[in-house]
Amino acid sequence: MPIVQIELLAGRTVDQKRALVAKVTNAICESLDVTPDKVSIILRDMEYHNYAKNGKLFSDK
Amino acid sequence: MPIVQIELLAGRTVDQKRALVAKVTNAICESLDVTPDKVSIILRDMEYHNYAKNGKLFSDK
Amino acid sequence: MPIVQIELLAGRTVDQKRALVAKVTNAICESLDVTPDKVSIILRDMEYHNYAKNGKLFSDK
Amino acid sequence: MPIVQIELLAGRTVDQKRALVAKVTNAICESLDVTPDKVSIILRDMEYHNYAKNGKLFSDK
Amino acid sequence: MPIVQIELLAGRTVDQKRALVAKVTNAICESLDVTPDKVSIILRDMEYHNYAKNGKLFSDK
Amino acid sequence: MPIVQIELLAGRTVDQKRALVAKVTNAICESLDVTPDKVSIILRDMEYHNYAKNGKLFSDK
Repeated sequence: MPIVQIELLAGRTVDQKRALVAKVTNAICESLDVTPDKVSIILRDMEYHNYAKNGKLFSDK
Repeated sequence: MPIVQIELLAGRTVDQKRALVAKVTNAICESLDVTPDKVSIILRDMEYHNYAKNGKLFSDK
Repeated sequence: MPIVQIELLAGRTVDQKRALVAKVTNAICESLDVTPDKVSIILRDMEYHNYAKNGKLFSDK
Repeated sequence: MPIVQIELLAGRTVDQKRALVAKVTNAICESLDVTPDKVSIILRDMEYHNYAKNGKLFSDK
Repeated sequence: MPIVQIELLAGRTVDQKRALVAKVTNAICESLDVTPDKVSIILRDMEYHNYAKNGKLFSDK
Repeated sequence: MPIVQIELLAGRTVDQKRALVAKVTNAICESLDVTPDKVSIILRDMEYHNYAKNGKLFSDK
């Protein structure tokens, strides 16, 4: 039943996402004693002008 | 005041979304005794490589 | 695969939530042509001091 | 540590977003007594057919 | 129409939250040229064992 | 910069959460080539009457 939402900076490849969801699902199953079919993951790509830290857009850094 | 966020797989038409928000708003008003003007809905389209279940991207299934 | 998140003001009964998730699931299935077993819903109760509109906490209205 | 997510209607310029994250970060630092480097902000652009109020898509208004 | 979600560490007073929503609403109105009645804010309190950075729970720091 | 939100059913121990955030952070660092200090994780506990699948509250199953 765990539902995961991950915001990541735009530009990741599908290969990176494929590895990411496999490894994150494993990490959850090991820690919470659930089976992988219970784990849903939503990825969201953030454009550099849609993320800010310290009051500044990432695209301005 | 209910605020709804719905993640759906990319590819839904505007007609489907129009029906979706009308029906979901009705469902909420009937269940929670609120008026429709209080209900906000955010839709987010998920590309097939941005959703995973069972450790696999949906685009790989 | 639709994943729904609903923020509602605290104080709803379990009966109201039971009706809510049944009706919202129906609304989604009718609009998007998915089966109910694909629909996940997360409810979150907002305390009145954790929701604001027009710059004011709901608990101050 | 505050993490902020803001959904805004599509069409905002990068200049508007730059001002937005600077001012929101300030607002948080003044209210919660944290330093700006602790504040993360995610912006998400909503297409007009991906936001609804009162049971209607914004694109239909 | 901007909808804001803010995760903050548990322990903030209602007075701090009152100031926070007033100032954040102002910040948004000034930056995006919207009126305050359009701005909704959801606050969520994070227990120290429900937030992690650098692979560690905040309660362990 | 990855920001992770995980909804989990209520009842997990702090030990389980400690393992979870350590392993999920590792999984992200290995997949996306970021350092652990860039990874933030928010956990949210869902009461059984606040999660539904197939139109039914989890507390009714």
